[in-house]
Amino acid sequence: MAQPNGLHVAVVGATGAVGTQMIQTLESRDFPIAKLTLLSSERSAGKTVRFKGKDLVVEAATPESFEGVDIALFSAGGSVSKELAPEAVKHGAIVIDNTSAFRMDKDVPLIVPEVNEAELKNHNGIIANPNCSTIQMVVALEPIRQKFGLKNIIVSTYQAVSGAGDAAITELKDQAQAILEGREFTPQVLPVKSDKKHYQIAFNAIPQIDKFEDNGFTTEEMKMINETKKIMTYPELHVAATCVRLPVVTGHSESVYIEIDEENVSAVDIKELLSKAPGVVLQDDPSQQLYPMPADCVGKNDVFVGRIRKDLDRPTGFHMWIVSDNLLKGAAWNSVQIAESLVKLGLVK
Amino acid sequence: MAQPNGLHVAVVGATGAVGTQMIQTLESRDFPIAKLTLLSSERSAGKTVRFKGKDLVVEAATPESFEGVDIALFSAGGSVSKELAPEAVKHGAIVIDNTSAFRMDKDVPLIVPEVNEAELKNHNGIIANPNCSTIQMVVALEPIRQKFGLKNIIVSTYQAVSGAGDAAITELKDQAQAILEGREFTPQVLPVKSDKKHYQIAFNAIPQIDKFEDNGFTTEEMKMINETKKIMTYPELHVAATCVRLPVVTGHSESVYIEIDEENVSAVDIKELLSKAPGVVLQDDPSQQLYPMPADCVGKNDVFVGRIRKDLDRPTGFHMWIVSDNLLKGAAWNSVQIAESLVKLGLVK
Repeated sequence: MAQPNGLHVAVVGATGAVGTQMIQTLESRDFPIAKLTLLSSERSAGKTVRFKGKDLVVEAATPESFEGVDIALFSAGGSVSKELAPEAVKHGAIVIDNTSAFRMDKDVPLIVPEVNEAELKNHNGIIANPNCSTIQMVVALEPIRQKFGLKNIIVSTYQAVSGAGDAAITELKDQAQAILEGREFTPQVLPVKSDKKHYQIAFNAIPQIDKFEDNGFTTEEMKMINETKKIMTYPELHVAATCVRLPVVTGHSESVYIEIDEENVSAVDIKELLSKAPGVVLQDDPSQQLYPMPADCVGKNDVFVGRIRKDLDRPTGFHMWIVSDNLLKGAAWNSVQIAESLVKLGLVK
Repeated sequence: MAQPNGLHVAVVGATGAVGTQMIQTLESRDFPIAKLTLLSSERSAGKTVRFKGKDLVVEAATPESFEGVDIALFSAGGSVSKELAPEAVKHGAIVIDNTSAFRMDKDVPLIVPEVNEAELKNHNGIIANPNCSTIQMVVALEPIRQKFGLKNIIVSTYQAVSGAGDAAITELKDQAQAILEGREFTPQVLPVKSDKKHYQIAFNAIPQIDKFEDNGFTTEEMKMINETKKIMTYPELHVAATCVRLPVVTGHSESVYIEIDEENVSAVDIKELLSKAPGVVLQDDPSQQLYPMPADCVGKNDVFVGRIRKDLDRPTGFHMWIVSDNLLKGAAWNSVQIAESLVKLGLVK
């Protein structure tokens, strides 16, 4: 139940790469919190996390942890969400889930506030936060779809290791140091910790994020395809994705080709549109070598777009380069933003 | 004039990243050399380079350096080629030029032996070696074009720093070490040494290779577009490219989307075709996490292709991932391979 001076918020996965950013974002946005409950696995319980000048002790998550919680932000893996999110809802919380557990469920809205905030009204207790690489793409493309129509998307991603969690960040740094010193090393985390084989990520590029599905696409690629259609409420949209992991700590980049409906649209038209689009920062001036890069986006909530140019052969085709902090707009900030929208729309009891 | 026991070969740019690989490739291929002349700028003259167990002294290149040379391999930058390649031809040498100086000249064949070796017969003294990122793409796509027709190419590249020379390799390694130690650093080489601004490459991705042209594409992107059409003798082909520099030392990767003419072609058909294609190694088995990666391609002459899959919406669309050593098939090996073709076709006097 909401307290007079704010809400009771819980963060599940409070010690992970995304959970840490969620707590920092709640603080930096001054989200109206009366009580913050930090939850984790048994393994991480007992750790302390700093919030607004106080050290909060992380507790092991159980169904009872959600008693009195208004909003629960989940980012502790799909299996934890599948087990505990329904329990949180039973105890009266609204769940904002950053895992893929419920994203494609018909009863669960999949929300990027710049795109489909209004769908929050249809929630049944659980709201899903889309995949990081999907979020930044739809923030940039939805204004284009609304104004000029959108038929096709072909995206190739350049994804940072922090999307695979803290262990992947440590692996990248350790491997880079080993290679610079000429030492041997044994990959153990990337591309997918639970998959059979692991490969070098430092000074390399791995064209596999998440496991392979029967159609030859990876689950990450299918997330981008299916989630984009769901968020845009546009099942007929043609979307294809190739997802690649890079030796970058934080900041996903995307090389995106689109075909719009309208002809006679120029690159300048697209730039003008995106310069005013919510959540988007246009960084596009070749004469000044201005374009987005992952190293520049870290710690920022926006989606950065540049390299916008019209295809040389196809009159409705455009290319662009989209970059965002995968831990913020791709995860923590989008989740907190959903929480802010719930408050704004009066959807929190 | 060819000596009885082999040819007189010159390498211009003998101390650079590509020149070094050219010399090693001439040795490992046991190219029929009677005399090897190593040439460079004044600055690098006097250095020694090991070839077949002997130390050869590098000389400063002048027009007279090409007296008696049968084949001259150039890789010392466009301005050196523009000045000295015509001089070499005047002195009777056949020039194989790895720079962009003459690639789009109508009188200069642009050769990838697997694709258009027969055009060597039309040379007028200078033969151009295409851009690294173009070569590996056309080796993989030409067999598809021949068998199934080809309408569209949309490519996003993941390019290694060695394509920008030795200084870029040093910059990547020094920056990576500085970042791991938390030290400051000042980018000075990438993305383009002679451009106004320089950016961090370690743990980053820079969507600029070469300078920008007025149409918003970079010169590297326009090379991929124009050279592909010329090599395939197919000006109507639709090609678009987005070129990105990565913190990888050697090995260019490409995420390629194509549309072919024929319908009813399966990914298995494409895989079967490429498994027998010259210069191509198919590495494509998702169940074994088998796909090409830059770290695996270094030191190999082949073009590696994997992640081949049919588009989910477009019946003539296919996606693939193409990787090759940009210093070898992308430069040194393709140049030496052209030299081998000249010998094979009896085109060396």
